[in-house]
Amino acid sequence: MDATLEHLGRRATTAARVLATARSGVKDAALHAAADLLSARIDELLAANEADVRAAEQQGMAPTGLDRLRLDPRRVAGMAEGLRAVADLEDPVGEVVAGWVRPNGLHVTQVRVPLGVVGIIYENRPNVTSDAAGLCLKSGNATILRGSSSALASNRVVVGLLRKAVDGAGLPGDAVQLVEDTDHASAVTFMQLGALDCLIPRGGPSLIESVRANATVPTVIDGDGNCHVYVDEAADIDMALAVVVNAKMQRPGVCNAAESLLVHRSIATQFLPLAAAALDGVELVGDARACSLVAGMVEATDEDFATEFLGPKLSVAVVDDLDAAIGHIARFGSGHSEAIVTGDLRAAERFVEEVDAAAVLVNASTRFVDGAELGLGAEIGISTQKLHARGPMGLRALTSVKFVVRGDGQVRS
Amino acid sequence: MDATLEHLGRRATTAARVLATARSGVKDAALHAAADLLSARIDELLAANEADVRAAEQQGMAPTGLDRLRLDPRRVAGMAEGLRAVADLEDPVGEVVAGWVRPNGLHVTQVRVPLGVVGIIYENRPNVTSDAAGLCLKSGNATILRGSSSALASNRVVVGLLRKAVDGAGLPGDAVQLVEDTDHASAVTFMQLGALDCLIPRGGPSLIESVRANATVPTVIDGDGNCHVYVDEAADIDMALAVVVNAKMQRPGVCNAAESLLVHRSIATQFLPLAAAALDGVELVGDARACSLVAGMVEATDEDFATEFLGPKLSVAVVDDLDAAIGHIARFGSGHSEAIVTGDLRAAERFVEEVDAAAVLVNASTRFVDGAELGLGAEIGISTQKLHARGPMGLRALTSVKFVVRGDGQVRS
Repeated sequence: MDATLEHLGRRATTAARVLATARSGVKDAALHAAADLLSARIDELLAANEADVRAAEQQGMAPTGLDRLRLDPRRVAGMAEGLRAVADLEDPVGEVVAGWVRPNGLHVTQVRVPLGVVGIIYENRPNVTSDAAGLCLKSGNATILRGSSSALASNRVVVGLLRKAVDGAGLPGDAVQLVEDTDHASAVTFMQLGALDCLIPRGGPSLIESVRANATVPTVIDGDGNCHVYVDEAADIDMALAVVVNAKMQRPGVCNAAESLLVHRSIATQFLPLAAAALDGVELVGDARACSLVAGMVEATDEDFATEFLGPKLSVAVVDDLDAAIGHIARFGSGHSEAIVTGDLRAAERFVEEVDAAAVLVNASTRFVDGAELGLGAEIGISTQKLHARGPMGLRALTSVKFVVRGDGQVRS
Repeated sequence: MDATLEHLGRRATTAARVLATARSGVKDAALHAAADLLSARIDELLAANEADVRAAEQQGMAPTGLDRLRLDPRRVAGMAEGLRAVADLEDPVGEVVAGWVRPNGLHVTQVRVPLGVVGIIYENRPNVTSDAAGLCLKSGNATILRGSSSALASNRVVVGLLRKAVDGAGLPGDAVQLVEDTDHASAVTFMQLGALDCLIPRGGPSLIESVRANATVPTVIDGDGNCHVYVDEAADIDMALAVVVNAKMQRPGVCNAAESLLVHRSIATQFLPLAAAALDGVELVGDARACSLVAGMVEATDEDFATEFLGPKLSVAVVDDLDAAIGHIARFGSGHSEAIVTGDLRAAERFVEEVDAAAVLVNASTRFVDGAELGLGAEIGISTQKLHARGPMGLRALTSVKFVVRGDGQVRS
């Protein structure tokens, strides 16, 4: 085991004990101070980021990667604003989740507590550094951040400012720590660091796969979104067009964008040509029946139906009925966000109950499946696993519960 | 990947889709029918168990192992009663956990849903087979059970009866499946079976260690209980004696039994000799100050303080104050159950807030940390991790949530 990582782990555990009982006012003061420091020392941050970007360019990073890596005054202002928004959220720690009295007089409550030490492993977006650390701090957790080597200079500055703010508020600076050793072997070591009460990966499929294969600490996986919109026979055509276009095109590169369109056969002849026209610029691939209704549509393979395109491409299938739509989603969906457009109550209720996904939507775009849009405030990710948290994860997803049992001398007989 | 296990996984996934929307009445009918079958066909079960026990004896299994493996009419009646008790519990599926309306008119709810497919890997107690399958069925999950080879004949009969009952109630028999291949390699394959939404190990440290090292599916760990009782300076002496004796001796072999006693120095001279006398038959090991107060006490090592004895042995330390007690528990505790005995409100509140454990108790025995004793009904285990579930796990620990979003055509701008 890596001595440096072990050391970071021990320091985080010590800090977490203090953070667990820190009051909201103190944590909020630290968050506001961090936001102020990001604004005040933006030049230092932009200079470090410029060095990161230049090095990445020299190493041939693709333009999309460079875009994620690059900071500018607007993005830094967004990071500061994000920290202030987190300070404004309600503190989940101390919430009494449930409570009752046992026949023998024991008072039992379940109280929300921080997880302890949260590890975040992520790719080259430096804004994740402040976003994740801010959410962890507000929920009373110590964070160990492991970003990519390409963003190391930027992350060092961000973490330095956060630590200064935390320390200035009277909390342990080790509440926020950065892993500076960013080679592959240390990533695996990080995924097995006993001090982590929870590891959250933020990144692409290869990172997720590595976490699944290597992590021995508890993880919450933010996985793929192969999201469907099913246009039922009882759908309002205009509403269906608006939802499909929004779900596919409003921001095609994100996990809650639609990747597949299912259309009931009794409405397909009318709907699909309109949809194809409205989805101008989107490459459509479809099953035989869909191809017969849209000129130029290429036949889709099973692999197409299983693919999260993350771009201007959509798979299309004509289905016989609601059962077939639900069956298609069960076969190809990734359990992220699934929508139905219908005016039929029974179809809506069956879709909601029978489709197994983090979020199911009736007559609304899949793009709403996001912490801010659903009203959770900021999010630390979107869980596609069923354990611990599912769907957009706000502050509560960064907490656990503790049983508190109060008696007056009870013993078990 | 093992073809048989893959096949079991697919069948479980198919069954889980049906179970997810099964009504409580139907699930309860299956549970009652299973209980009736266990009673009606007890001779068949006892004969199979007798064969398991005889084979285990020939292979030299230790008496404690044989005792866990052995069924008798009273134990089988307990298994049947357990299934009926689970039927009487409230069904967690469908509970609306939270709900609100967004400014744009979207109605958002979080609804409790089954996990899907739950894997249980356990050692040689055949009653775990019916207990775990019953809890999973009531909470709408398909179960894949992997017991030990020593209990295979018994488990085959129990699972056969459960499947017959489930099928008779009109639910898919594949709701309950048994892994018949019980060699070590297949255990690891099972821990990596993609169909499992959750894996729960029930067994000793080596099983837990193997799950931590090998599992790639989400797990809930039922870990060690190195539980402490701290007798504060403001403790009522008689209450403290009763709690300590009960926590240590009422059933020493279980995870919520006390393994370590901490005593405030200002009360130690009075309390420790009384405690030593009351703990008749318990081997005491202690720090230097404790040894100076109790004749014949042997000096404890750090390893003693870190050990879950699971028997009539107790480590003892005299601490300077509450901070030292909390510090000792942070260093040596396993995060299971920790108790304070005190009449001082401030000490009680600080202990509750600052000790990081699944359960903290004030003036009550650690032995109450158990699903039935705390009022959760039956339990599937006691989680010592912080993710998903913590402490005794009842039916809700076998569920996830789903976001349900209802709109009237909203799209994201």
